Amino acid sequence: MRFSRPKQPWFVVVLLLLAGVARAEVRHPIHFPDLPDHKTLACDLHMHTMFSDGQVWPPVRVAEAWRQGLDAIAIADHIEYQPHKDDVPTKLGRSYELALDGAKTANVLLIRAAEITRDTPPGHFNALFLDDVKPLATEDFVDAVGAANKQGAFVFWNHHGWKGEEKGRWLDVHTTLYEKKWLHGMEVCNGDSYYPGAHQWCLDKNLTMLGNTDIHEPDLRKQSAPGDHRTMTLVFAKDRTPEALKEALFAGRTAVWFNNQIIGRPEWLAPLLDRCLRVAAPHLRSKDALWVEIENVCDVEIQLDRVGNVGPARLALPAGTISLVKIDTPTPSEPLELAYTAANFLIAPGKGMPVTLRIAGETKPK
Amino acid sequence: MRFSRPKQPWFVVVLLLLAGVARAEVRHPIHFPDLPDHKTLACDLHMHTMFSDGQVWPPVRVAEAWRQGLDAIAIADHIEYQPHKDDVPTKLGRSYELALDGAKTANVLLIRAAEITRDTPPGHFNALFLDDVKPLATEDFVDAVGAANKQGAFVFWNHHGWKGEEKGRWLDVHTTLYEKKWLHGMEVCNGDSYYPGAHQWCLDKNLTMLGNTDIHEPDLRKQSAPGDHRTMTLVFAKDRTPEALKEALFAGRTAVWFNNQIIGRPEWLAPLLDRCLRVAAPHLRSKDALWVEIENVCDVEIQLDRVGNVGPARLALPAGTISLVKIDTPTPSEPLELAYTAANFLIAPGKGMPVTLRIAGETKPK
Amino acid sequence: MRFSRPKQPWFVVVLLLLAGVARAEVRHPIHFPDLPDHKTLACDLHMHTMFSDGQVWPPVRVAEAWRQGLDAIAIADHIEYQPHKDDVPTKLGRSYELALDGAKTANVLLIRAAEITRDTPPGHFNALFLDDVKPLATEDFVDAVGAANKQGAFVFWNHHGWKGEEKGRWLDVHTTLYEKKWLHGMEVCNGDSYYPGAHQWCLDKNLTMLGNTDIHEPDLRKQSAPGDHRTMTLVFAKDRTPEALKEALFAGRTAVWFNNQIIGRPEWLAPLLDRCLRVAAPHLRSKDALWVEIENVCDVEIQLDRVGNVGPARLALPAGTISLVKIDTPTPSEPLELAYTAANFLIAPGKGMPVTLRIAGETKPK
Amino acid sequence: MRFSRPKQPWFVVVLLLLAGVARAEVRHPIHFPDLPDHKTLACDLHMHTMFSDGQVWPPVRVAEAWRQGLDAIAIADHIEYQPHKDDVPTKLGRSYELALDGAKTANVLLIRAAEITRDTPPGHFNALFLDDVKPLATEDFVDAVGAANKQGAFVFWNHHGWKGEEKGRWLDVHTTLYEKKWLHGMEVCNGDSYYPGAHQWCLDKNLTMLGNTDIHEPDLRKQSAPGDHRTMTLVFAKDRTPEALKEALFAGRTAVWFNNQIIGRPEWLAPLLDRCLRVAAPHLRSKDALWVEIENVCDVEIQLDRVGNVGPARLALPAGTISLVKIDTPTPSEPLELAYTAANFLIAPGKGMPVTLRIAGETKPK
Repeated sequence: MRFSRPKQPWFVVVLLLLAGVARAEVRHPIHFPDLPDHKTLACDLHMHTMFSDGQVWPPVRVAEAWRQGLDAIAIADHIEYQPHKDDVPTKLGRSYELALDGAKTANVLLIRAAEITRDTPPGHFNALFLDDVKPLATEDFVDAVGAANKQGAFVFWNHHGWKGEEKGRWLDVHTTLYEKKWLHGMEVCNGDSYYPGAHQWCLDKNLTMLGNTDIHEPDLRKQSAPGDHRTMTLVFAKDRTPEALKEALFAGRTAVWFNNQIIGRPEWLAPLLDRCLRVAAPHLRSKDALWVEIENVCDVEIQLDRVGNVGPARLALPAGTISLVKIDTPTPSEPLELAYTAANFLIAPGKGMPVTLRIAGETKPK
Repeated sequence: MRFSRPKQPWFVVVLLLLAGVARAEVRHPIHFPDLPDHKTLACDLHMHTMFSDGQVWPPVRVAEAWRQGLDAIAIADHIEYQPHKDDVPTKLGRSYELALDGAKTANVLLIRAAEITRDTPPGHFNALFLDDVKPLATEDFVDAVGAANKQGAFVFWNHHGWKGEEKGRWLDVHTTLYEKKWLHGMEVCNGDSYYPGAHQWCLDKNLTMLGNTDIHEPDLRKQSAPGDHRTMTLVFAKDRTPEALKEALFAGRTAVWFNNQIIGRPEWLAPLLDRCLRVAAPHLRSKDALWVEIENVCDVEIQLDRVGNVGPARLALPAGTISLVKIDTPTPSEPLELAYTAANFLIAPGKGMPVTLRIAGETKPK
Repeated sequence: MRFSRPKQPWFVVVLLLLAGVARAEVRHPIHFPDLPDHKTLACDLHMHTMFSDGQVWPPVRVAEAWRQGLDAIAIADHIEYQPHKDDVPTKLGRSYELALDGAKTANVLLIRAAEITRDTPPGHFNALFLDDVKPLATEDFVDAVGAANKQGAFVFWNHHGWKGEEKGRWLDVHTTLYEKKWLHGMEVCNGDSYYPGAHQWCLDKNLTMLGNTDIHEPDLRKQSAPGDHRTMTLVFAKDRTPEALKEALFAGRTAVWFNNQIIGRPEWLAPLLDRCLRVAAPHLRSKDALWVEIENVCDVEIQLDRVGNVGPARLALPAGTISLVKIDTPTPSEPLELAYTAANFLIAPGKGMPVTLRIAGETKPK
Repeated sequence: MRFSRPKQPWFVVVLLLLAGVARAEVRHPIHFPDLPDHKTLACDLHMHTMFSDGQVWPPVRVAEAWRQGLDAIAIADHIEYQPHKDDVPTKLGRSYELALDGAKTANVLLIRAAEITRDTPPGHFNALFLDDVKPLATEDFVDAVGAANKQGAFVFWNHHGWKGEEKGRWLDVHTTLYEKKWLHGMEVCNGDSYYPGAHQWCLDKNLTMLGNTDIHEPDLRKQSAPGDHRTMTLVFAKDRTPEALKEALFAGRTAVWFNNQIIGRPEWLAPLLDRCLRVAAPHLRSKDALWVEIENVCDVEIQLDRVGNVGPARLALPAGTISLVKIDTPTPSEPLELAYTAANFLIAPGKGMPVTLRIAGETKPK
């Protein structure tokens, strides 16, 4: 019975009965290292509540994000699609207001957002960092996007490969937005879907890559585990603030975590991968082999295919573990540089990220 | 076959890993056997949605119940407590209407219900099997319970040990209801709480025992696992219909599944326990010992303490497993009857259910 | 400290410290239904111990089998390959002797066996149900198989696709054994490998199909879970005895459980599948659709592809769960028969088992 | 994107499932931070193999240790107790030899050891860092311990509370060893047992505290998870070498990880706890409360009881998670120091470690 509960954010008081002891709910950190000059923020910038076609009261989205280790979320309820309105009268922007207190308490960055929702074409678009959702409720689609831009919003095209005959096509209306600089990014991944077309366009047109859940139901996950996590956007921001997040999104400093893949530009995947992999000095050397431990400190399994001649043909390095690697080569006098491709760090559709494993030479025995 | 394997360290040998394919959500059955003349229905008869102080849209409750293997649920939104009403105007009984289609599709019995919500005393009361919630919205508490009874409702006192100075006390108003035969049951368990006082009153006053979640947030469980399940009421009904469920509740044929305990009257716990335990014939006999396999086919670990002289002093039989039991006794000519108490099958506060383990004699060797 | 422990079988000794309470180890049943006239026995008939090139003391194999729900095992230590012999002097058949007491206590059927181990060709062969291993230690390979047959052994060809240039080839020596009726089965699966060639030969030459682990290291599994189980042979035997197991193996009444697939002859897969699937009567009918619950009571996900015109194109029914299936068809006056193929019940390489889902007609509403 | 989803029941919507691919075994790191001047080495210094009364071939112990993240192990087979000797002729020290290659490859420190095994009294004693086991095989017990010390061995008393009438008693023979400085430590924990008496003696007599598994069977754990780990000794060593390990053991720089408790001297528990807990600056301040995130980066849940007046009465901080803590106090001008006891960091039997949580003051707002 929690009659008086709503007055304080509920994720603080939800207690588990575990082996007969009541416990507070906890936050499970996501493990992606920060970059040298940037913090790595885990973000889900597309989700719904009761105030459009979602199934939950807005603070639930904060609680889910908190326990799963997210840094920032945006509730982007549909402006035009309001299937619950007979029971829940339309109040644009209301989900943000209802979720804000909890977000402050939980130290989750909450971004005011909305989804501009039209049939395909043109499709659905999210606007983030709004001051006020209402001006976006205009009849003409381009006007709506313009109203968002007038507020300095970051606008991205959602699940572009979804539904309708024109799905996945870049049409005049998109060119219009693009030329006005009113379109800043695309969802390369939405929920369980990956759109290679959107991926390629982001590269060709210099748009920011995003991956989000677009979740409508409650999220049952207690944590973002390597094998069962949200589709999310990793944003490389100068600080953990809404302002820094916005700057990073406009600057295109993102990667998408989707189904054990990291999708992004090589300039951000290179330093990320570099910090995820820890290659120890060889601990054993025989006449014609070296033994090395390689640790993967991040939450995705790193899948390496050999490009050069030395090293195992294929290495699968599971998240959060250490692998024992035998390299069939005589002990070199110089450090070894093994050329690999990280097959699941995608820098273009179907194209993995090149990576070099540096193995210390004889002069630095362990 | 790894004939030549020992030449290289075996921990390099490859194992299985899991990768992704999309699939439909499924229902996980709850494992409590039916009784000889009754079906065992798993029921949660107290939960909330957006339409009072809950956090979810009503069909979420059906989806949770379906995937966790429940047979019946009652959404009992508060009549008087409507903290969301500025956003969701009060519509008594609306949560039932919105959940009904999904319940029919999912084959979950949905019971129209409401929670009559007053400060303690008198406290909170659920009314089930209503035709119409609105007549219960009257100022006087006793009138409200009367209105429910006029509709033939089953009425029970919720979480009686919750909140206020008068909590957990049986007062004149309760006697009034009881004497009018307007009060039919009590929650012995609510969420993470067990109320021994309510337990005793149910025995003394012949009230039906219930256990419910009173859940407000989304339920994250994918299934009702032995170690992590809802608090629920097992109802022993003649059929899997709302009518049979109602008959069984009025007749008091229930047990409560709470935190690895089953709480109920001995007349129902005896046949339930009898069907949960399967004692095989001894498969090995020595001069002074027998070996027997005992299977526990239900979802609670059964914890047995020896009462007699023969058999292990204590047996913990985990859910869904088979235990190997050594009985230190010469092979008997007659079947053995071992007297135990099932410590976690409570027939009164602190009192376990007596149970006899019957071991086949020599004449029935395996 | 268990100084005096070896005198009684160790798997009886309490092991786990769980939530501060010591508990006995338990057996986790495997869930495959018995057939109308046969018991379904879960068997692993190829494994190793210290007495050839394995890594464990023989009773460990019994303990593993018991906790994982197996009915029968055969320790088939290599006769000729004895890499530990400097430390463990060769004693043919000794592993059986050391494991026998524990097997009796644990009610696991232990089959005396050995592996006749030669380079390919001819390869490795297991002989089961031996009276004495020693006579098989002869120089000539055919003589060794003959010595096994003289004892009435059931002989099968192991991992025929393993190692050497001649691997996976049927040569004169195999014809010799076959024509003498000295070769009775083949491993269609061994550990993580499936051999389609062996599968086809079993069909063509009427040999019994087997699947085994050939395990050398300790088996870390606590139970045979659907997603992580041993490769094993399901034997459909008239009773749970060594004699009945032998009769069933010679009669070819087996199926192999391998990596979420069941491999076997249609005469045994048909009744097995029939008992694994429980199709309820429709619980909801609309003008143009039916809703049905289908339960899968066994430990493999059943993967169905539609052959006919009615029903979902594809159904994945996870182990131990109930799926909700919508069938787009007007309510029929007659029962519906939906034609599917169980894609992962293989009756030949690449060929699934045909199966009919029978849906009750209007006359039998629920 | 599930824009049109509400029209059909959502629980039909597809989810992710996992299917198989082969992979190498991995090492799962244990998470205890290094101390400022010392590395934290995870050690299990008491285990058995086939060469005494264990159930596994020696390299199995290395594989177990490697995958579970241990830094060092000692196989301490009984010298005098050789129940397998009819099958495995006694070879003192042979288990070390057989395990050594694998240990080098896996980068696990393997310590040559033996268990001097006599009835109680005097009981069982482990000798580590031996050059040769054979000289310890002498009839007189004190001579055997002397022979170990002659080799510079570290000697500790095992499971002193185990078995016999004299169990758990400090007798003349122990005083003899102690006065000769031939006894250097005691097992405070062995497997599932904790010995408060041994704990107190280690404090009183300045003996090193150890905790080990004394495992005989295969260890089924894939990793040392917070809720299911080996009993082990954390050794605070100057380097990750056998020599540094030995120095640290003689110097008494250890703690025992046992059943979600850390047992040790305050001089080592203080810096360990300090590095396990990360108290962030308050991220939210109201008129009369602060909100703070506290991360626990180690593998034990840290259980804090308040000693002072400010802060929650009890905090349970699960392993590897972040807890959200509300502190009911007006914003202070100075940093807050909250006095707690870490109830499960034992510095004496029944006595928790005092700890101060430092909360940044107003001058450092986030």
